[in-house]
Amino acid sequence: MEEVLREYQELNGSHIEFIPNAPTALEFSRIVHISRPVHFAGASTLKWSDTYLVEMMGSTPINVAITPDGFLADALVEGPDGQIYFVEPRTESMTMDSLLHSLHSPTGESGTTAICYLQSQNGNLYTPHRARSEFNSLRGDVPKDVPWATEAFGYSPDAVNLWIGNRQSTTSIHCDPYENIYAVVRGAKHFILFPPTEGYLLQERNYPRAVYTRPHPGAPLELTPIEVDENSNEASMVSWASADPTKPIRGTMPLRVTIRAGETSTCLLVCWWHHVTQSGDGPGGCGIVIAINWWYDMEMRGDKWVWLNALRRVSQRGDWNAPHLSGTDTVV
Amino acid sequence: MEEVLREYQELNGSHIEFIPNAPTALEFSRIVHISRPVHFAGASTLKWSDTYLVEMMGSTPINVAITPDGFLADALVEGPDGQIYFVEPRTESMTMDSLLHSLHSPTGESGTTAICYLQSQNGNLYTPHRARSEFNSLRGDVPKDVPWATEAFGYSPDAVNLWIGNRQSTTSIHCDPYENIYAVVRGAKHFILFPPTEGYLLQERNYPRAVYTRPHPGAPLELTPIEVDENSNEASMVSWASADPTKPIRGTMPLRVTIRAGETSTCLLVCWWHHVTQSGDGPGGCGIVIAINWWYDMEMRGDKWVWLNALRRVSQRGDWNAPHLSGTDTVV
Ligand SMILES: O=C(O)CCC(=O)C(=O)O
Ligand SMILES: O=C(O)CCC(=O)C(=O)O
Repeated sequence: MEEVLREYQELNGSHIEFIPNAPTALEFSRIVHISRPVHFAGASTLKWSDTYLVEMMGSTPINVAITPDGFLADALVEGPDGQIYFVEPRTESMTMDSLLHSLHSPTGESGTTAICYLQSQNGNLYTPHRARSEFNSLRGDVPKDVPWATEAFGYSPDAVNLWIGNRQSTTSIHCDPYENIYAVVRGAKHFILFPPTEGYLLQERNYPRAVYTRPHPGAPLELTPIEVDENSNEASMVSWASADPTKPIRGTMPLRVTIRAGETSTCLLVCWWHHVTQSGDGPGGCGIVIAINWWYDMEMRGDKWVWLNALRRVSQRGDWNAPHLSGTDTVV
Repeated sequence: MEEVLREYQELNGSHIEFIPNAPTALEFSRIVHISRPVHFAGASTLKWSDTYLVEMMGSTPINVAITPDGFLADALVEGPDGQIYFVEPRTESMTMDSLLHSLHSPTGESGTTAICYLQSQNGNLYTPHRARSEFNSLRGDVPKDVPWATEAFGYSPDAVNLWIGNRQSTTSIHCDPYENIYAVVRGAKHFILFPPTEGYLLQERNYPRAVYTRPHPGAPLELTPIEVDENSNEASMVSWASADPTKPIRGTMPLRVTIRAGETSTCLLVCWWHHVTQSGDGPGGCGIVIAINWWYDMEMRGDKWVWLNALRRVSQRGDWNAPHLSGTDTVV
């Protein structure tokens, strides 16, 4: 594994390619083949003001992820019992108007301390075989696919996702089996990226599951362990990376990319590990962050999936990092 | 390794895609990405008769590989001392007329038993930075590159090779770090192919080197061990696959492809293992076999090379097959 890691780093360095315009299908096909981040400036011209969004969405209820102040969704959190849990956010239904209102007031929505992040990750804008979505009224502004990507892959995206948040939300380090084209509409997204070959250094461990709940309307959020029925198919434990990518992690060579409003990036190629923070479009990073991404299924034929899967097995067994690392070793 | 092997086989099966025409650059880019053999019928219309070849080449001397009857070039051969050697052919200079004459007489050239195979593998038709070649006079018939491949890669081939032989020559199992577009002009080539993931089952071992020599003109060929000076940079041993791909090899799932005159194939994608036999264009497989191939450098960026290299290390260490195989185990 270490030889693979070192050779990958030597061949690829920490270079990120910048291209002034969107690529052709053939150029993008090569990019997917190499699977290194590429950044396109000025690829999107979409502008969405608060007024416009509220007007278009009206009273349509939308599902928003809620977490307590300072905490993260889909992330590792220490519970009141001292145990580390993998915690999922609470989902609450609200209007666009109340979402934006809450995102503009950094202490959280109406009295209770809570942070909202619209991050449904289920193709909330488009997904095949579903004619309508919560965001039907915004569809006219968002292309169903990225033409050069669809042409390169030979198929359409599996999900098109809308993300609306502010600088209080962080997406913790993880990877997805998708080729992800990421466009920022307002504000900026900051990525810390690790190639698939470095995943085994991110210290994946198994954690029990929990979810944020509200005992009664208006009450503060509570971290509640999920008890999984022995006979159910649901996993009782989640394997999650425990390393903190904001600090140096021994052996890794992270890339840092910021995508700003109007820019598009393929920085989230299949199984690249990503940690995401954001800054809003207001002064000092306050304000709103809006992004759209198109998730394309990866090519399963050939050997790519086989290698990525082998890498996942190595990380999850965790036998590689044990002799080298203790906690998140900080090195210079 | 076994998990990787099994998953690769499950995902890819032993399917070979057939396409009636040449692909577009984008289609070919996808093929290279997946790195599975694809076969194009009717892609080339080149016809070269003996008379035409002799007329065009005249008395130009060409370098031809010579091996004794029944033996192979660049292959493992038992020497008179009982030791197995990796043997290179003798190279002799002759005219096109005498090459074709020798290939038409199955007992070998003029009296001495020897088999000729024009297989220089050095870009004998074209190679960058070399204006002339032995086969200058045939260049007018052969495109410098394969347009859809050059467009897909974004660069020209590193070597264009001409191969002229008969059914007595076999190319022993090996793999190359090239994307190889293979076109047959006369006769047929029969490939037994193994994906890179199966290389570790082909039992690579280290062998001392030898070469065929002729003590004096007209004498029979002799297998002569190569003594490598300790201070030279030359390797004294060659790592070569010892398994016999014409028999079942435990754990492998070989593909078999025949390319006939007029057909083109990408069956030799980077680091695919190949064993090649041939049949001539005459009755019963006698006669001449002519092929041309275009070798394109592989993409070094990304993780492909890193994985292929890791696979080579695993094969060469040979620690994987030891517990499972003894000799070329024959299984059903
Ligand atoms: O934008 C974010 O917060 C996370 C995006 C992400 O993780 C993804 O699209 O996979
Ligand atoms: O055609 C042959 O005999 C061998 C071809 C080959 O091995 C190659 O092009 O790499």
